[in-house]
Formats: sequence, C-alpha cells, structure tokens
Amino acid sequence: MQEKLSLAEAFKEAAFQLPAHGKRNVQVLKEVFEQIEGHLDSDIYGTGKVIEDFQANMAEVLGKEAAVFFPSGTMAQQIALRLWCDRKGLNQVAYHPLCHLEIHEEDGLKQLHHIESVLLADKNRLITLEDVQGMPEEVACLLLELPQREIGGQLPEYSELEAISAYCREKGIYLHLDGARLFEVLPYYQKSAAEVCALFDSVYISVYKGIGGIAGAVLAGTADFTAESKVWKRRHGGDLISLYPYIIPADFYFKQRVHKMEKYYEEAKALAALYNQCHAVTTLPLEPVSNMFHVHVSLPKTVVEDVLIDLYQATGIGLTSYVREVDEFSSYYEVSIGDNYSGVPQDKLQSLFVRLNERLQQASS
Amino acid sequence: MQEKLSLAEAFKEAAFQLPAHGKRNVQVLKEVFEQIEGHLDSDIYGTGKVIEDFQANMAEVLGKEAAVFFPSGTMAQQIALRLWCDRKGLNQVAYHPLCHLEIHEEDGLKQLHHIESVLLADKNRLITLEDVQGMPEEVACLLLELPQREIGGQLPEYSELEAISAYCREKGIYLHLDGARLFEVLPYYQKSAAEVCALFDSVYISVYKGIGGIAGAVLAGTADFTAESKVWKRRHGGDLISLYPYIIPADFYFKQRVHKMEKYYEEAKALAALYNQCHAVTTLPLEPVSNMFHVHVSLPKTVVEDVLIDLYQATGIGLTSYVREVDEFSSYYEVSIGDNYSGVPQDKLQSLFVRLNERLQQASS
Repeated sequence: MQEKLSLAEAFKEAAFQLPAHGKRNVQVLKEVFEQIEGHLDSDIYGTGKVIEDFQANMAEVLGKEAAVFFPSGTMAQQIALRLWCDRKGLNQVAYHPLCHLEIHEEDGLKQLHHIESVLLADKNRLITLEDVQGMPEEVACLLLELPQREIGGQLPEYSELEAISAYCREKGIYLHLDGARLFEVLPYYQKSAAEVCALFDSVYISVYKGIGGIAGAVLAGTADFTAESKVWKRRHGGDLISLYPYIIPADFYFKQRVHKMEKYYEEAKALAALYNQCHAVTTLPLEPVSNMFHVHVSLPKTVVEDVLIDLYQATGIGLTSYVREVDEFSSYYEVSIGDNYSGVPQDKLQSLFVRLNERLQQASS
Repeated sequence: MQEKLSLAEAFKEAAFQLPAHGKRNVQVLKEVFEQIEGHLDSDIYGTGKVIEDFQANMAEVLGKEAAVFFPSGTMAQQIALRLWCDRKGLNQVAYHPLCHLEIHEEDGLKQLHHIESVLLADKNRLITLEDVQGMPEEVACLLLELPQREIGGQLPEYSELEAISAYCREKGIYLHLDGARLFEVLPYYQKSAAEVCALFDSVYISVYKGIGGIAGAVLAGTADFTAESKVWKRRHGGDLISLYPYIIPADFYFKQRVHKMEKYYEEAKALAALYNQCHAVTTLPLEPVSNMFHVHVSLPKTVVEDVLIDLYQATGIGLTSYVREVDEFSSYYEVSIGDNYSGVPQDKLQSLFVRLNERLQQASS
C-alpha cells in the first residue's frame, strides 16, 4: 500500500494548482533574464540606470515625488514608521492587531527602533474612523493595510478611507499605506494607484504578491522622505551592491500583470461563489474585494486535509497546500488568484466543487 | 575635437580591464542560471534545499557548527556584534578605526543597536596584541578584519593573531572575524579557512569579493548563535521570501574561484612589483599578502587621472576606474586581482608599465 501523501505533497503533485501565478521556482527568474542583454550594467549601491529608472517609474505610478527599491517590505515599513516618529519626536504608531509588523517581524520595530504600537480595532474587523478618532495623541503615524490580509483581504469603503485620511491630516498624524496588495484592490475601488496613494503620506508596495516578482518592495513619498529612507536602508543592511536580480523581474512582471488585476478580481468572486455553495464553507469576505479571500470550513483541520487530499487525487486540481486550525471544530486557508486560475478548465472546476460539496457533507455527518 | 573622457569612461572603454573578475553586469547572473534547471524550487524564508545546502557547505568550509546566508555583510556583522553584546550584557565592541561598521554603514550599529565602538590602533596601522591588551573591560567583542582592507589589505602575522585569540578567550571577550576577503588571505597564511576561523567565535564572509558572486554574505558560528542570528535577520528585513538569486551564484562562483586564490595572490605580487618600479609610486603593502593592495602616487589626483586616461587610450588596458585624493600632493587607488588579470597579454603589460613610468616622470618634473 502506498504511503499517504501530505496535503502539501498532494497539492504539488496535482496536474493543476488553482491559486497564485505558478510554482515559486528558478524558472520565474530564468524567464525574465533570458530576455535581458548580458551587457546591461548592475546597479551599484542604489545608483545606476536599472534601479533609478524603476524607482522613477514606480514614483510616477504611485503619484509620489520619489520611490526607493528595498529588498523587503519588512525593512521598508519599519523605516517609514521610524522616519515619521523622528519627525514628530514621538515613539508610538498605530495599526491593526494583525498588522505584518505586529505578527510577522519578530518585533523588529520595537527591538531595533524602540517604537511602540497602539493596536486599533478588534483583530477580526477593519479599523474604522471611530477607532482612529479614539487614538491617543502621542501617535506619530497610523498605518493602514489595504486590503487587510489576515482577515481575508477586507477593505474599508473608499469614503471611510477618505474620512480617515482627512482626520489624520487635520490632526497632524502621518498616514502610511501598507499596500503590499495595492494594485489588487484598485478594480474594486475603481481608482488609480496614484489616487489611493494621494490619501497617504508614504506608501509601501510589494513586487511579489499580485505582481509575482521574486522578492522586494518599493517605498514612495516626498523626495526628502525617500532620501532619508536610503540612509536607514544602508543602516539596516539593505543597500546591497546589486539589487537587479529583484528589480529586473519586478519591472518585467509589473508590466505583465498590473493590467490583469481586474481579471483576477472577477475570478476571485467567481471562485468564492463556488466555495460558498459547498456545505460547511464560507468565504471571508463573502464576496471578495480583491484577488484574495479566506476559505473557512466548520470542520477540523485534519478532516479538511483528508477531504482535500482525496479531491486533488481524484480531480488533478489542487486548491491549497495547507489548512490552518481556527479551533478544534473549524479551520481555514487563504486563496489568492493569479495566472494559474484561467489555465484550469471550467468544466473540471465545476465538477470538482460538486465533489467537494459531497465530500464535505459526508465528512460532517 | 573630441570631448575628454573621464577616468571612469576611459577605463570602461579600454579593451582590457586589469583588476577584478570582469564587468559587474547582468551576464554574471545569466551565466549561472543558464546552467540551472527551472524546476528547482525557491528557498522560502530561510528554508528549503537551496539555502540549507549552501549554508551546510559553508559551515563545513568554515569549520563552524552552522552558517546563515544574509543579503549583506552590513546586516550579518551588526547582528553578530549585537548577539555578543546581549550575551555579555554590555554595549561596547572594539574594532579598527577604518572598520566597515565605523565608516560605511551610516552608523547602523549605533543607531539601530545602541552599541558603541572602541577604536583600537591608529588608522594607518594594524591592531596589535598590545592594543587588545589595553582595551577597556567593558568590551563584549573584538572584531578583526582580515585583511585590513582600508589600509591596502595588510595582515598581522599568524602568531600575533593566535596570541590575540588566546588573550580574548582568557578574558572572556568574544572574537568576531570580518572575513569579507578571508579566502584571499589563506595562501599567505598557508592555512585552511577552518583553521583561521577556529581562532574566532563568529565569522562573516562575503560572497562577492574574491568569490565574485552578485551580493550576499555568510555568518557562521555555533548552532545557537546562528539560530539567534536568524531572528535578527527577520527583524532587519533580511529574511526574504527568496534569496536564491544570490545564493545560487554564490555557490557557483565559490566552486569556480575558491581554488584560484593562490593564483590571484601571486599575480598581485607580480603586479605590485611592476608598480613599485614606477616613479612616484609605492604599493601598500609593498609586497601584497592577498589579491589586493593600494597604489599610492606622490602626485595630485588630477595629474594621476590625466596620466592614466592617456595610458588607457594608448595601450587599451585600464588599471583603475578612479583615483582618490590623499592630500593636495598625493593620491591612491585600490587594486584587486581576479580573473581579468591573466587575460591581459604579459608583453602589453610590461610595455604599459614602461610607459607609465615615463609619463609619471614627466608629470613630476
């Protein structure tokens, strides 16, 4: 008898993977550099055509005076918050309880910059204008994440965003955008990136989420803000002699995918509708507002894993590589739509969800 | 009349460039990845075969329990010193006045880690055992750089290094190696990397100096030390989702060049001898102890630049892309030998130095 595969293995072995753009393998890099001439000069410690052109292009897209390429969003965002704290002479910033800086960075902001966090809102919901109005006075900067990834990629209504921005301007509180998935929410808002960014003093975007680059981030703002951010980039050890292995793919995949965000968004809504027809399943948000959502199943993690492994082997389509436990009765996983989705035949997908529904009903009984 | 080229332009346009491994362009990356299969999985946040295998190999080469790949030496070394300070409950480290952390990192160690530096020795000479014996008691860690790059790549005698190491062990002072150019000094010491590293508690090496990779660094030490360094790597924003664009080239060029260090060293000695035969020129060290040395000319920077531009155009060989001012009467530049050197015909090189000597004599009169 064959040894049972793990969910991750079954996902990898499936003929199709439904989420994302494709496998995170070396081909992502090879595909780009096969089209680049070898004599193109490297950037050198933040200078040179490769990095300067990309930064200028990103500044224009984001409607800011200047932009800086960083090896990571972790580095870019800590530095943004540090700069705002230094300008205000304060050491407190406010953000959501599930903010990347709070849960994924080993407390770098606190340990390296001695900046404390004020957590707004309950972790299961978005920050509202009322939360912002209730902030302590000693907050230098408010960080908003659009969409709020850890709760399924939810978004405030645009009018609420405008009201929060106006309030912060009035009170002299700097407003920073965690826009790791900024381009992904533009179809829902029906706004340009520059229009959204105009509400914020500083903006971070990721080049490897919806854009699908290899790694890296961009921080944008005024020319003096970005100039200061380069000093801290060096202090953090992020001013590498060559960042082109990330910049060139970022540029390549940005041009390839930035116009596909509407398509991913529509596909995410279609897929969420299929999930919501299944027994014991609800997506969060119920109707996605970007290319992402969470799938919540009111069954234990191990039960869901078993159902999914069987399903992948029966249909050749992988839905997720992991399931996380919420509590002993329920579990969830995240879905992000990218290039893979449209490669999966629609009839196969429909019959997969019929089967998934049946299997979940059996598992619940 | 043609506009006069700058020294950097004349260097770039020369048919041959004498120092280094070649141009820092995209070909450095393409050459590696043309030989790598596209289906090789990316590393993911410090895990996966690509990064783990490379780290294990480096740990073995350096004779340490474990090694961690970092995007930069700046990040790796600040973190090493932070860990030693935390272990001792002190916030002072000692190093050379021209240490990379003191002059090239925008004071990251002080600004991010609140660690103060005690500067040993005069900036124009190496740290001696006597300097170390005179250190204040509150120093958690001593950093030694082998070779001391900013003074031409000088080295202490191995017996002095052993004596410094023994003294630090006796006093409970941690000893960290800035081994950016460690492999380059092994032929002079006639030691293995592991033998040199055994004198130190922690070791940093660069993968893009003599090795000629794209960017990146390795930090090695005990398993608990390197495990803690990974936490700080995340805090600094260096725990990227994918570091393979640096790791795979590091591995490739390490295997290609680590055995060539003896050759580079012999070539550096031969080239320094040619320089020292020229009027107004002295190399530092007079006889190199690695693949690098500094060329000091007792003529003003602009005079030396003019001589070199003419020389490159007459001979088609570039010696350096820049000259730095020491004072109004003298100047210098750094030379590192790599793959380029052996591609330049010896007869051309001999006649170049005859001409250089003549031109320097003319310029001095």
